[in-house]
Amino acid sequence: MYSLLSVKNGICASDGFFAGAKSANLRGNGKDDVAFIYSDIMCDTAFVFTTNKMEAAPIKHTKNKGEFQTNFVLMNAKNANAMTGKKGIEDIDSLLSQLQIKFPQINTPIMSSTGVIGVELPKEKILEAANQFDLTQKNSTDAAKAIMTTDSYHKEIAFKVILEDGSFFHIGAIAKGAGMINPAMATMLCFITTDANIDKSDMEELLKKHVENTFNAISVDGDTSTNDTVILLSNKKSGVYQKDAFSDALYRVMEHLSLEMVRDGEGAKKLVGFEVKGAKNDEEAQKAAKKLSDSLLVKTAIFGEDPNWGRIASTIGASGVESDESLLSIAYDDVVVYDKGKNLFTLEIENKAAKIMQQDSFNVICDLGIGNGYFKSYGCDLGYDYVKINADYRT
Amino acid sequence: MYSLLSVKNGICASDGFFAGAKSANLRGNGKDDVAFIYSDIMCDTAFVFTTNKMEAAPIKHTKNKGEFQTNFVLMNAKNANAMTGKKGIEDIDSLLSQLQIKFPQINTPIMSSTGVIGVELPKEKILEAANQFDLTQKNSTDAAKAIMTTDSYHKEIAFKVILEDGSFFHIGAIAKGAGMINPAMATMLCFITTDANIDKSDMEELLKKHVENTFNAISVDGDTSTNDTVILLSNKKSGVYQKDAFSDALYRVMEHLSLEMVRDGEGAKKLVGFEVKGAKNDEEAQKAAKKLSDSLLVKTAIFGEDPNWGRIASTIGASGVESDESLLSIAYDDVVVYDKGKNLFTLEIENKAAKIMQQDSFNVICDLGIGNGYFKSYGCDLGYDYVKINADYRT
Repeated sequence: MYSLLSVKNGICASDGFFAGAKSANLRGNGKDDVAFIYSDIMCDTAFVFTTNKMEAAPIKHTKNKGEFQTNFVLMNAKNANAMTGKKGIEDIDSLLSQLQIKFPQINTPIMSSTGVIGVELPKEKILEAANQFDLTQKNSTDAAKAIMTTDSYHKEIAFKVILEDGSFFHIGAIAKGAGMINPAMATMLCFITTDANIDKSDMEELLKKHVENTFNAISVDGDTSTNDTVILLSNKKSGVYQKDAFSDALYRVMEHLSLEMVRDGEGAKKLVGFEVKGAKNDEEAQKAAKKLSDSLLVKTAIFGEDPNWGRIASTIGASGVESDESLLSIAYDDVVVYDKGKNLFTLEIENKAAKIMQQDSFNVICDLGIGNGYFKSYGCDLGYDYVKINADYRT
Repeated sequence: MYSLLSVKNGICASDGFFAGAKSANLRGNGKDDVAFIYSDIMCDTAFVFTTNKMEAAPIKHTKNKGEFQTNFVLMNAKNANAMTGKKGIEDIDSLLSQLQIKFPQINTPIMSSTGVIGVELPKEKILEAANQFDLTQKNSTDAAKAIMTTDSYHKEIAFKVILEDGSFFHIGAIAKGAGMINPAMATMLCFITTDANIDKSDMEELLKKHVENTFNAISVDGDTSTNDTVILLSNKKSGVYQKDAFSDALYRVMEHLSLEMVRDGEGAKKLVGFEVKGAKNDEEAQKAAKKLSDSLLVKTAIFGEDPNWGRIASTIGASGVESDESLLSIAYDDVVVYDKGKNLFTLEIENKAAKIMQQDSFNVICDLGIGNGYFKSYGCDLGYDYVKINADYRT
């Protein structure tokens, strides 16, 4: 038994963690674009990085460290430091070394970047701003805002996890990414802190496990950015830990932030769950569910609020998973429109389904009728605003 | 030695082939929507069908015949006869049998459909229109127009292939599909006729071979419709055949029609070739090239005429093929913007690249610098009109 209490302060809810932001004027409007996370005790680390072969310099820089502890993460927006070669990695090393002169308490710092690809890191500007950090601040929200790119709002969450004996620990996180529609460009970054007394192997096990059904369930078009990163930092300061409770809290943090990214999908108005059940196995369910949330035709039908179940069926067929039109059923929430080979559309059913699609959020439920495989992915509509944002993003 | 002479009359250019169209008023505007191809001699057949697991009734109906000869293809628009179960196949059988009462010269007819999924075939309406066919007509263009759905123009082509000794044969074709952006919905159909004295094994070999670099090179989002079909019919009437000449002519026919589909991509304004060379092998080149033509980010950058090469690099990395930023080069036509780890962007180079992107047609050339693998795919931009067409398609 344990309880999760929603609390404020994001990454700073965890004891011993500090955060804040400054402007290096990379945005050209004076808004914060450089941020930090600092812990007054060294932290164990667990990571999930992009599978993109062109991984950005900050990812290479972190991976090169192998196993390590840290107490500091430097973050910036507007520049991904990707496709910048060896120079990109050297820039990080030199920037972090110079920052350690000003802040000697920083130990084995790492960096995380998001923004435009192929432009050299403006390290002098970033250093000048970072030198003004106040490491005693607990401004999680400022840090969350500083790393936004095409996000329309900042994303943070925290829980106090109370065990049966009254002891407790915290977990908190910030994230950026309006990346639902295109994680490929709008990099997703997520930083999670905890003061739970968790060991490194549990950190790695649970982070990897929950990524599958959260951030990986929204990787809509199969693309992944050069910079995608999820970092979990634990400083053990509470001395308290219970695996089930931590796992549950971590899952809720990651689920919340991943759904926030979908909701904030570039130009998106609707959050749609694609639930595939009855597949041959979970892998096939995942394949079909992701194909549904990736499909341009499904996305535009959602934008048009058109219960065009033929596109759903065709997309499942195109995904290549074992499926048969005589076993398949399709529903919008609780309105079944196609049932094992039978088209149930009447004017009444069609109107009911269309009404469901007019909501901000609903589920498309597909039962393949073959086995017990299950996966739920999340998608959104694709409308004019998506085109506008992405046609104009860089310039 | 042989020469290809471009001729008129599409599928009717081949000797002994007839075509025409009528209206079953499926479109609701009196325009033709039912068409036929008839040959006065029985034809050998070769097919390439969709890999979609939810294959439509006309495809199942044709496949059920196994090896067969035919002299008649019935076509309709506005209804895909997909997700219609056994009833869909029975409808075709009954429709074609009734049509044979009116036209006893029809032998082993087949059917091909395109349109909305999940709606029963309006077979009485189609039969009534088909009963008015004039099998002595050579109206290839009418047939090409009758099968259009979201196409903005009809697509046909024909060659007279003249061998060194002056003997000759013909090859002609019609196709439909504004399917570049979404072959998933806007089914692609292609009907090819020839009077060449080609045997069945060459027909099958050459059709499969050329599909790879033509229709399959434009299957942009990896989706395939429930109805995609390419049919080659040969009645051998010329008595003439030469494999190289036929192969070349067939390739040109298929290349032309596939590029016409891209040009006519729903709402698309630009035809872009994605040339990937220097990949580990041809398969990896194909994987990267298709990922580029599928990518929403690349498509919207093309729409925005923004030479954002970072998106190109990131998409190659996301495709999972062997690649390295220090070996990769990227060019827009002859303007190299990134060369083996070096960003070549100056204001001048950027302007040159942007100018190239303002054209109706250009190439993005990526050299991975690893092996000799090569593939060229074709894509187009994704703009507001695509959203409009696909949000409103069914209703």
